[in-house]
Amino acid sequence: MRVITLLTDFGTRDAYVGAMKGAILNVSPSAAIVDICHDVPPRDILAGAFLLGGAYASFPPETVHVAVVDPGVGTRRRGVVLVTPSAFFLAPDNGLLSFVLGDIRGRLLRSRADFGATRRVAVPRGCAAYALTEPRYWRHPVSSTFHGRDIFAPVAGHLSRGTPPDAFGHPVSTLACLSFPPLGRQPDGAIQGHVLYVDRFGNLATDLRPSDLPGGDVAVDVAGRRIRGVRRTYAEATGLVAIAGSAGYLEVALRDGDAARTLGAHVGDLVTVRRA
Amino acid sequence: MRVITLLTDFGTRDAYVGAMKGAILNVSPSAAIVDICHDVPPRDILAGAFLLGGAYASFPPETVHVAVVDPGVGTRRRGVVLVTPSAFFLAPDNGLLSFVLGDIRGRLLRSRADFGATRRVAVPRGCAAYALTEPRYWRHPVSSTFHGRDIFAPVAGHLSRGTPPDAFGHPVSTLACLSFPPLGRQPDGAIQGHVLYVDRFGNLATDLRPSDLPGGDVAVDVAGRRIRGVRRTYAEATGLVAIAGSAGYLEVALRDGDAARTLGAHVGDLVTVRRA
Amino acid sequence: MRVITLLTDFGTRDAYVGAMKGAILNVSPSAAIVDICHDVPPRDILAGAFLLGGAYASFPPETVHVAVVDPGVGTRRRGVVLVTPSAFFLAPDNGLLSFVLGDIRGRLLRSRADFGATRRVAVPRGCAAYALTEPRYWRHPVSSTFHGRDIFAPVAGHLSRGTPPDAFGHPVSTLACLSFPPLGRQPDGAIQGHVLYVDRFGNLATDLRPSDLPGGDVAVDVAGRRIRGVRRTYAEATGLVAIAGSAGYLEVALRDGDAARTLGAHVGDLVTVRRA
Repeated sequence: MRVITLLTDFGTRDAYVGAMKGAILNVSPSAAIVDICHDVPPRDILAGAFLLGGAYASFPPETVHVAVVDPGVGTRRRGVVLVTPSAFFLAPDNGLLSFVLGDIRGRLLRSRADFGATRRVAVPRGCAAYALTEPRYWRHPVSSTFHGRDIFAPVAGHLSRGTPPDAFGHPVSTLACLSFPPLGRQPDGAIQGHVLYVDRFGNLATDLRPSDLPGGDVAVDVAGRRIRGVRRTYAEATGLVAIAGSAGYLEVALRDGDAARTLGAHVGDLVTVRRA
Repeated sequence: MRVITLLTDFGTRDAYVGAMKGAILNVSPSAAIVDICHDVPPRDILAGAFLLGGAYASFPPETVHVAVVDPGVGTRRRGVVLVTPSAFFLAPDNGLLSFVLGDIRGRLLRSRADFGATRRVAVPRGCAAYALTEPRYWRHPVSSTFHGRDIFAPVAGHLSRGTPPDAFGHPVSTLACLSFPPLGRQPDGAIQGHVLYVDRFGNLATDLRPSDLPGGDVAVDVAGRRIRGVRRTYAEATGLVAIAGSAGYLEVALRDGDAARTLGAHVGDLVTVRRA
Repeated sequence: MRVITLLTDFGTRDAYVGAMKGAILNVSPSAAIVDICHDVPPRDILAGAFLLGGAYASFPPETVHVAVVDPGVGTRRRGVVLVTPSAFFLAPDNGLLSFVLGDIRGRLLRSRADFGATRRVAVPRGCAAYALTEPRYWRHPVSSTFHGRDIFAPVAGHLSRGTPPDAFGHPVSTLACLSFPPLGRQPDGAIQGHVLYVDRFGNLATDLRPSDLPGGDVAVDVAGRRIRGVRRTYAEATGLVAIAGSAGYLEVALRDGDAARTLGAHVGDLVTVRRA
C-alpha cells in the first residue's frame, strides 16, 4: 500500500481535512495517510507549491502526494495526476506542482517581469500527466466546492491501491507552472534573487541555490540590511544570518528571533549576494 | 481493525491529544487513528457537534468516532456509545451527537425559543446507546479531569478490536440533543433559518437545506445585506455569494475574503431566503 | 513494529514535520507515527520537556518517542537515544528528557537558585543512553539545520524496526537535565512550588504533586490571589480552582476562563499551599 500525503489550505480548525481522510479510507481502508501541512494561507498557491517542494523528496518511492489549494474549485480548471519516476502527485492544475516540476527540470521556470504568474510548461520527459475526468473513481454526489473530498481523496485512495494512473482520465501534455524573474547577474559577479517564502520562525527562503552564489567570501543584502558570510548553522552567528537551508535554497534567519518581522521583509523582496 | 477518529477541543498546542492516542494504542496497537479536528473552541458543544456532523459520513462503515468537548468532565454527566447502522460514536452525553442524530432522524431537533439549548430525545429506531459505566475497559487510575484519555480512548481501542458495545455499560433510552428554533415560514413563501457555524474562511453555514428553499430565483438576506441567487461555486460570483455547501446546508461566503468579518455576522444570526 | 511519536517546535504551518515523517517512512514504510505536538514555543526546551513528560506514559511499551526542540542544531551538542525499561527516547541532549528522567528518578532535579538551568545527571540505573554518532543510519546529505529530518527521523525508523540502540553510537553516562529550585518547606507546614507550564486553556501546571501538600483543608496562593481547597473537577467550583491535574501535578484553573490571563501568571511564578 502506497503512502498518501496531504497538503491543503483547509486549516485544522474545521473538519475538512478529516472529511478528506474519511473519503480516502472509504476507498482504501488501510491507507497510511500523512499530513504535510494544512495551514497554507488560504488560496496561496505559491506557498503551497513551495511547501510541497520542500517535503516530498523525503518520502518513500511511489508515495501519492495530494495537494489542494484550489481557488478555482468547481470551475473548468482541471484536476491532474502527475506521474514522475519517484512519486505521484494529485492537484488542481494551477501551479501547485511548480517546485516539483522545477526539481525535475533542474531549474524553476523564469520569465522576465513575472513573479508568481502562471504559465504552461510541457510535462517533463520521463513523466506523464492525466486529467482527472473519469467519474467512476469519484465520491458521489460530487459537490461543486469540495473536490478535495469528492475527487482528489477517492482518486488518491485508488492510486494507493495500485489503480494505474491512466485510468483516471486522458493524458495531458502541459501543466500550469509558476514563473519567477531570472536571477539577476551583475557585471561584478553579484547575483540577485528573491524571497519566495517566510516560515513560522520568520526565516526567509529565497530562490538562490548555494551553487548560484559567487565563490569566496560573500555579503548578502536584503531589505536594506547587509549580512556577511553564509553560515552552516543558526548557532554559529549572532543576529542576522545567511544559511544554506534544509530545502536546498539560501535562507536568511535571525538567531533566536524573527528575521521577516525584524527586516520588514516579504515574499518577492530582492536578495543580492555579492563578493565581500 | 476499525478506523478511529478523534474530534476534541483540546487544541494542538499541548499534549492532550497525544496522550489520548497513546491510550488508544495501548489497547489496540495497530489502530488507525485519524484526526477530525482538535481546535473546536473550548467548551463549544454546538461547534463540535456541527463539525462531527460534517465529517463522519465520509468514513468507512463501522468507523469509531470519538468526540470530546466536555465541560462537565468528572461530574455526573455520563459518557455514551451510540451504535448506528453505519458507525459507532463515543462522546459525553451533552449534545455533541446532535447532528448525527439529526441525520438519522431526518431533521434537526427544533423547539420554539431554543437556540442551542439541550433537550433529551429517544435513541432513534435501528440504533442503540449504552452508558460507559464498566471500569474494566478504562485506564486506571481514572483522573477526574481527563476522561478523553482515561475512558473514551481505551473504550475506543476496545471497540476498534471488536468488543461488543453492550459490554461497556447499561443501555440508555435517551440522549442529549441541541435544539434550534423552527425554520420561520412566512406567508410569501420566504423561509428563515440561522447561522450555525463560521469556518476558518469566514464562511457562514446555516441550518437551511437546499430543499427547504423556495423554488425559482431567490434572494438571501443576512446581517442587513441581500445576496441574489444561489451559486454552484465560489468562483462564479464576485463579492458575497450564497452557495449549497459541501455539508448539505446553505452557506454564505465572500469570494476571496471573510464573509463573517465583512458582514459582522455571528452564530445565531437570522438568514432569510425569499423569492427574488 | 514499534509506534513512533513526534514532539517538536516546528509548528504546523510549514512542511518540516511532513518532511520528518517522510524520512521515517523511507526507512520504515509501515511505521505508525503519532504526533504528540508540534506547537512547542520555538526553542522552549522546558515546555517541550513538560509536554513530553505528560504524554509518553500513556503509550504502549517500547514506543519510540522523538523530541526535537533543538536551538543548538548543527553545533557540537549531541543527539542521544535513551533506553528505559518502558520506552525509547530520541532527542538532542539539551534537557528535553528532564521530566522523563524525573519520573524514573522519582523526583525532578532541584538545585538552589536554578529555574530551568541545565545540569548533567547520571543515566539512571536500569536505563542506557547512546550518542547518535553512527552516520550509517542517517539520511544523506545531512543538513546542518534540520537534524530532525536527517538524523532523528531515520534513526527512529531503524529503531522502530528493531535495530538495537547501541548500534547508533557509543554509550554515554550522563544526560542534560533541567533543574528547578527545591520546594520551599516553611515551619508552619506550608510548601512553595512553581508554575512550570501554561496550557491552551490558561491552566497553570505546577511542580507540586498532591503528595507534597499538607494534609487537611488547604489554601493555594498564586499571583496575589488565594484559592480555597483542592477540587476534583473543574465543574465543582466557580471562579479559580486548584485541582489535581491529569499529569500528576497540582494545577490552577479558572472555570470557563483563562487562569493565566486573569491572574497575570507566568512560568516560574511561586505557588504556595498552606493549611487553611
